[in-house]
Amino acid sequence: MGWESYVVVHNIAKRHNVGTLARSATAFGVSELILVGRRDFNCFGSHGSSSHLRFRHFHSLQDARRFLKDKDCDICGVEITNDALPVNHHPFNKSTAFLLGNEGTGLSPKEIEICDFFVYIPQYGGGTASLNVTVAASIVLHHFGVWAGFTERSRDGSKFVVADRPVKQVRRNYCSGAEDSIIEERKARRENAANGFFDESESGNSSSNLLDALFTDG
Amino acid sequence: MGWESYVVVHNIAKRHNVGTLARSATAFGVSELILVGRRDFNCFGSHGSSSHLRFRHFHSLQDARRFLKDKDCDICGVEITNDALPVNHHPFNKSTAFLLGNEGTGLSPKEIEICDFFVYIPQYGGGTASLNVTVAASIVLHHFGVWAGFTERSRDGSKFVVADRPVKQVRRNYCSGAEDSIIEERKARRENAANGFFDESESGNSSSNLLDALFTDG
Repeated sequence: MGWESYVVVHNIAKRHNVGTLARSATAFGVSELILVGRRDFNCFGSHGSSSHLRFRHFHSLQDARRFLKDKDCDICGVEITNDALPVNHHPFNKSTAFLLGNEGTGLSPKEIEICDFFVYIPQYGGGTASLNVTVAASIVLHHFGVWAGFTERSRDGSKFVVADRPVKQVRRNYCSGAEDSIIEERKARRENAANGFFDESESGNSSSNLLDALFTDG
Repeated sequence: MGWESYVVVHNIAKRHNVGTLARSATAFGVSELILVGRRDFNCFGSHGSSSHLRFRHFHSLQDARRFLKDKDCDICGVEITNDALPVNHHPFNKSTAFLLGNEGTGLSPKEIEICDFFVYIPQYGGGTASLNVTVAASIVLHHFGVWAGFTERSRDGSKFVVADRPVKQVRRNYCSGAEDSIIEERKARRENAANGFFDESESGNSSSNLLDALFTDG
């Protein structure tokens, strides 16, 4: 059975974390990075990997949940709740979407509500209260890949082989998804048109939006 | 047997990576973060965890190797070499120091020379050539903690309990080590005096050095 993994990101405060997350998600064979809520992020830190990853956007957590349940996915919160299971015990059953909390506050009650179960990463020292959100997500995605038996990427010397980049895409403001073909891309556009995720305009104003986004990032 | 883990960092290019690394090292019970080569880094990203972690500095890789061999440590390179073992198979034997490569180029021949063995993190997608160095290190340290059977930190709600911060330290320019007592701290100072790691001066100039370091960071 070919299990799949998804990452669900809801109101991540530091936008560059989305970029680093995209890099790890790509490395660990994640099918889609699902953004809920704010759409205005940049991909700093992704090292070009974002073009290989499919992104999807929903306005609400309930919409995201419906989409994932249609795919028969478990939704797993990455959070230190009382009933959270240690991720290294691989408490997975099928395709799984991992919901990440905001960097500062963790998962909110509304986020916790849509989760089927929770995993946490055991910690041993006495010096820090939580891991960086990208680090935590990467450890969880790594374990899911091991559990699911994903096929390992071939290596070339000290690097993993990078697949050819897909057709260059015109939407500069957003981290757009990797499509195998233009037909695939058009399909995704139609699917996402309703929630306005993709920037269809090709006017010259797009780069200024990106700069705005960078400077309002704090 | 109480195994220990160490992290060895040699010429990391992005200084804030040292800070995030310190945060993960603290979370995974690392005994010391050993810096080889450049001493002028800052701790951005460590979220205050650096004061709980002991730092040590050596001028050369051979000096670091001697120190670790005196402690009967294996030295494990985190690198995708031909004979590297997947880290999730836990190929550990005893206390281990993990040597991390530079973000861009990975481990150099000189760095590879001092390693006893290598681990790598399996990757599954086709989109990125390598993981962020902090992410890679964190996954490896997590697995070592599981293998070594480190005692899990107690939790309080959705956060791990943070130990009381040690005595405030006067050395502002460097990420200084956590000492259990002033006697411990003085011992560490004596040990490290020879290589000049610690800034013994308490003059008012220290903060300007930190600013210099930040602005020359690119």
